[in-house]
Amino acid sequence: MQYHLNGFRTGDPAIANGIARDTAPRGKVDVLIVGCGPAGLTLAAQLSAFPEIVTMITDRKTGPLEVGQADGIACRSVEMFEAFGFAEKVLKESYWVNEVAFWRPGSDDTPLVRADRIQDVEDDLSEMPHVILNQARVHDFYLEMMRNSSRRLEPAYGRELVDLKTTDDPDYPILATFRDSGDAGRTEIIRARYVVGCDGARSTVRRSMGYELKGEAARQLWGVMDVLAVTDFPDIRLKAAIQSAKDGSILIIPREGGYMVRLYIELDALHGDERASDRNVTSDMLIEKAGKILAPYSLDVKEVAWWSAYEIGQRVCDGFDDVPEDARGARMPRIFIAGDACHTHSPKAGQGMNVSMADTFNLGWKLAAVLRGQSTPALLDTYSEERRAKAKELIDFDKDMARLFSAKPKNATEAAQFQSYFKRHGRYTAGVETKYAPSLLTGSGAYQTLATGFRTGMRFHSAPVIRLGDAKPMHLGHTLKADGRWRLIAFAAQGDTGQPDMDIAELCRFLTAGPIARFTPATADVDSVFDLRAVFQASHRDMVVEALPALLLPRKGKYGLVDYEKAFCPDLRNGNDIFDLRGIDRQQGALLVVRPDQYVAQVLPLKAYDEIMAYFDGFMIPA
Amino acid sequence: MQYHLNGFRTGDPAIANGIARDTAPRGKVDVLIVGCGPAGLTLAAQLSAFPEIVTMITDRKTGPLEVGQADGIACRSVEMFEAFGFAEKVLKESYWVNEVAFWRPGSDDTPLVRADRIQDVEDDLSEMPHVILNQARVHDFYLEMMRNSSRRLEPAYGRELVDLKTTDDPDYPILATFRDSGDAGRTEIIRARYVVGCDGARSTVRRSMGYELKGEAARQLWGVMDVLAVTDFPDIRLKAAIQSAKDGSILIIPREGGYMVRLYIELDALHGDERASDRNVTSDMLIEKAGKILAPYSLDVKEVAWWSAYEIGQRVCDGFDDVPEDARGARMPRIFIAGDACHTHSPKAGQGMNVSMADTFNLGWKLAAVLRGQSTPALLDTYSEERRAKAKELIDFDKDMARLFSAKPKNATEAAQFQSYFKRHGRYTAGVETKYAPSLLTGSGAYQTLATGFRTGMRFHSAPVIRLGDAKPMHLGHTLKADGRWRLIAFAAQGDTGQPDMDIAELCRFLTAGPIARFTPATADVDSVFDLRAVFQASHRDMVVEALPALLLPRKGKYGLVDYEKAFCPDLRNGNDIFDLRGIDRQQGALLVVRPDQYVAQVLPLKAYDEIMAYFDGFMIPA
Ligand SMILES: Cc1cc2nc3c(=O)[nH]c(=O)nc-3n(C[C@H](O)[C@H](O)[C@H](O)COP(=O)(O)OP(=O)(O)OC[C@H]3O[C@@H](n4cnc5c(N)ncnc54)[C@H](O)[C@@H]3O)c2cc1C
Ligand SMILES: Cc1cc2nc3c(=O)[nH]c(=O)nc-3n(C[C@H](O)[C@H](O)[C@H](O)COP(=O)(O)OP(=O)(O)OC[C@H]3O[C@@H](n4cnc5c(N)ncnc54)[C@H](O)[C@@H]3O)c2cc1C
Repeated sequence: MQYHLNGFRTGDPAIANGIARDTAPRGKVDVLIVGCGPAGLTLAAQLSAFPEIVTMITDRKTGPLEVGQADGIACRSVEMFEAFGFAEKVLKESYWVNEVAFWRPGSDDTPLVRADRIQDVEDDLSEMPHVILNQARVHDFYLEMMRNSSRRLEPAYGRELVDLKTTDDPDYPILATFRDSGDAGRTEIIRARYVVGCDGARSTVRRSMGYELKGEAARQLWGVMDVLAVTDFPDIRLKAAIQSAKDGSILIIPREGGYMVRLYIELDALHGDERASDRNVTSDMLIEKAGKILAPYSLDVKEVAWWSAYEIGQRVCDGFDDVPEDARGARMPRIFIAGDACHTHSPKAGQGMNVSMADTFNLGWKLAAVLRGQSTPALLDTYSEERRAKAKELIDFDKDMARLFSAKPKNATEAAQFQSYFKRHGRYTAGVETKYAPSLLTGSGAYQTLATGFRTGMRFHSAPVIRLGDAKPMHLGHTLKADGRWRLIAFAAQGDTGQPDMDIAELCRFLTAGPIARFTPATADVDSVFDLRAVFQASHRDMVVEALPALLLPRKGKYGLVDYEKAFCPDLRNGNDIFDLRGIDRQQGALLVVRPDQYVAQVLPLKAYDEIMAYFDGFMIPA
Repeated sequence: MQYHLNGFRTGDPAIANGIARDTAPRGKVDVLIVGCGPAGLTLAAQLSAFPEIVTMITDRKTGPLEVGQADGIACRSVEMFEAFGFAEKVLKESYWVNEVAFWRPGSDDTPLVRADRIQDVEDDLSEMPHVILNQARVHDFYLEMMRNSSRRLEPAYGRELVDLKTTDDPDYPILATFRDSGDAGRTEIIRARYVVGCDGARSTVRRSMGYELKGEAARQLWGVMDVLAVTDFPDIRLKAAIQSAKDGSILIIPREGGYMVRLYIELDALHGDERASDRNVTSDMLIEKAGKILAPYSLDVKEVAWWSAYEIGQRVCDGFDDVPEDARGARMPRIFIAGDACHTHSPKAGQGMNVSMADTFNLGWKLAAVLRGQSTPALLDTYSEERRAKAKELIDFDKDMARLFSAKPKNATEAAQFQSYFKRHGRYTAGVETKYAPSLLTGSGAYQTLATGFRTGMRFHSAPVIRLGDAKPMHLGHTLKADGRWRLIAFAAQGDTGQPDMDIAELCRFLTAGPIARFTPATADVDSVFDLRAVFQASHRDMVVEALPALLLPRKGKYGLVDYEKAFCPDLRNGNDIFDLRGIDRQQGALLVVRPDQYVAQVLPLKAYDEIMAYFDGFMIPA
């Protein structure tokens, strides 16, 4: 955490100084977010980092979510929480998924035996664990972040979006009509530059654009309940997939706090036009069914904290914004949908909340860059391009998963198949396999061999380093905060310790005179648009701090203080050399261009000055 | 974190449910704490964990500390913060001291050269780092904890203690008179069972007992300032001890946030009766002096966040409670002093705040145990016994340190001497060398060979383990919360995985029928007084959870839910076998009795039933 740059201040450094005044006229906002689920809150939290952006977030509910819904938090989401500054809170409160147990009927007529027990997340997939926490607590952390921002952003609860129109107003073209749930009948009109529908599976924003979710509604009915229970089933504190011989399957997800557990219970398939609600499922039915599947183990439920019954539907929407495909490029998007509003999944792969947050983490910095005049609106087209592809791929994956979960394994071979599938897809469910295709934003990967462990189009995969200035062992990825900045991460070639005539120093000269000069406002800090970090191969004790190029010791803020947190070295003492871990070419070094949402946009040679300039010229506006 | 035991509850699990009603009559309190410094707040936070105890904490100041004073947080204090549940907040905001640089005149007339650079804390001294953070923030974390407790404890600010009397009231014998700083002249009288003077170096409580601080007031004058500055001195983000040839010495302590730095600056010695205030020290004088010492490096101070000038005094008080030595045992203490009220140190060893907190962490659980009827008041005598010895030892250490810091090194040999001294005393300043002598509370160490790495009378030295129930890699020490419970940590002998006929199972039977039955209230959870944890030698995957003795899977709370967090295994996968790391006898195993303040009271054989019983009979009251 860096703070006190513009003077010492008492109190909690997470609370932004001063309160930003509204820069938009009354009733007008830059971004209107409809819905306070994970998608809406991720977006609001991201936008609240920029005092100059006026954001409004609404929900038809009268207050924050308190219980239920999703609970699985993928490694990738925890990495994102770290960027937002609250990962440690999630890590502290949550259950950590360390191992998964698989139970099935034994060959000798034993009803259930533990067939396998595997590590949940493979080694070095992420520096963060896979954890389980009530979705409501994730909301709380976002809400706290928003409250701490300079705008002290709070959701407007009790406001239901009833209508959305596009007008020809050049500045605030979208007209949104809300009904106040408290004040019967009272309506309110908000004009917005951009609207993002994070209003869930029955999205009004989606409907206003004439889209619908498409896909097959699998007819499998599932029940989910969070319970406080006593059982003699031994693996009740492990994630456990249990397939009984005749009574279907259960997935056990231990919950935060050490006592609560979530059970996903298979119910009978729906027939014909039957809907989940037709079944009149009750929590007692779920408890009874769970008991049967778990037999001969006992299940004595003491309290049901929350429960629900639903059918699995894997569906995705054709459009993620208001630009029809034939008008793409000619018209700029003004309305977006994200999260469940544009794709729904079965809950057992635990993707709903995670993918919804990833959607708006993708969109947030782009909206901010356009609103702040940094980038052309063409940037906004990439949201739909990137996230639709991701959603479609996920739906396929999810169908497979759901089918496997519902299929009754006829024998040990089939059960084993499920296990191996489950294992293989660990990377996928961890959220780290998303790969954006080459585009305006994503390079071709022509120089991928320079850093084989940082894949173009994929999230920056953190590794341990030592921070040169204060010799702190830390994760390089944790310098990539959700602050809208681009990261340029330069891995020095062998022998380069920042000497004037070598690559890193020359890169600094180029960046300063080139992209930084072109795109950074004259009054802003030198690293406010492009944040250069350099990683050297030498041990940190062999480096000469004072010999670093000026851009790696930048003077910042009202006093021109020196920022000492730009240079890093491998953590050689612990045998974790980032150059080895991430396959970086020791002879040539490498330069990574990392997007504000932590995706690797480019892997380039350190001297690829033309490529760097061309890349940013592609979508950025000179300051 | 364990929660939801007595039913699911929404919101932040750190906020205690319900508000405890006052059990004491108006104007009467169980414990009156005078002073909201680190000592007072540690005690208040500890007592706030017990809803049945009525605590009042006052300060003559009108609000919380905002800036200045101490900033060094020893490893041991971070371990304690973990027990209080806010270590992660401190770790996030603070500067981490990783290495220390030593600068002195070069042999070739170079004014300053880096003579050495060493690791600050030796490996495996503590799982926690040595960190630096504004004392005010530590106060904030305690205050938050107190606010979250079931009593929603808040300090009574603006109340200055002016008089303290002991009466013959058998229940609330202490009569304290306060002057309200806001309401001129208004006084208030509080009656208390116990009073703890945490009112700093000029303690009114100490004076009321007729004690004074004794010791030599070294006449060395020092200045300290927290600045935002620009310098070309390369090690400005490392802890650095700089001894100039002619201008004295400076200690640089980088501060939280990445930009601020604290400078401890040697000023000229005081002469005769001169006081620090006679010198009319100004911050400009400090800046000028610092510049001279640092020359030829530049120092351009942009903002002084805080500064102070003081003389070093190493002093300690004869009595830490109101029982004269000749009445010890005949009379029970009712008034205590802690922190700066009973000992003062030079600030550069960074002990003031740390030792003050350690004082009241020592006292807090003892007061709680007596007030809750768990222990005889004889327990309270051990506070003075243990902490006075510690303070005296520390004063000696501190004198050495201060002398070394002030001594002008005549040559490289002397400078090197200082470095080596500094190095050797790392353990000491880390706060992990405190060793209580054999007493009512501390065993003789007769069986120390059973666990050479857990030394009797010293703090429990955490090591990594895997929690059996959920396969979580974690620190065993982090199960030792500041909740007033005794921990019994059983290390199983080879081959013992909890089978009915082996040591661990037998120990469980003994504990259940013996100490637990005798000292645990019938209506309380089985682990509410003694919290047994067992560490087995087998890999966690080779254990059979369901075969564990009942005491390791205890049923708790209103629903009788199972607590799965009592059994542990070595972290074999990461090569950190706790049995090797802490020298535990693999053939015999070992039992540790660990006090509520994390000190190892006894190292015993697993079958030492008589010793265990005799130990607790020594000071506990049957329930
Ligand atoms: C009952 C339920 C149970 C679930 N169970 C699981 C589970 O067990 N496991 C799992 O992984 N996932 C589960 N999910 C899915 C998971 O919660 C979602 O994938 C995730 O919340 C999607 O986030 P979102 O922000 O896109 O939408 P949501 O979280 O659905 O948020 C949408 C928000 O928009 C608001 N809204 C809707 N329409 C309007 C309007 N017109 N005007 C104003 N506000 C509006 C809603 O009130 C809501 O707060 C469940 C979801 C629900 C609803
Ligand atoms: C100005 C100053 C600078 C310091 N600088 C450093 C430093 O640079 N490095 C370092 O390691 N340590 C420093 N210290 C020491 C460190 O802060 C103390 O060791 C530590 O605070 C001791 O904690 P404590 O709780 O015992 O007492 P204190 O923190 O002194 O707290 C005592 C509290 O009691 C209150 N009080 C006093 N009398 C009464 C009364 N009659 N009625 C009600 N309330 C009363 C005071 O207002 C105060 O809040 C400094 C201390 C001071 C005062």
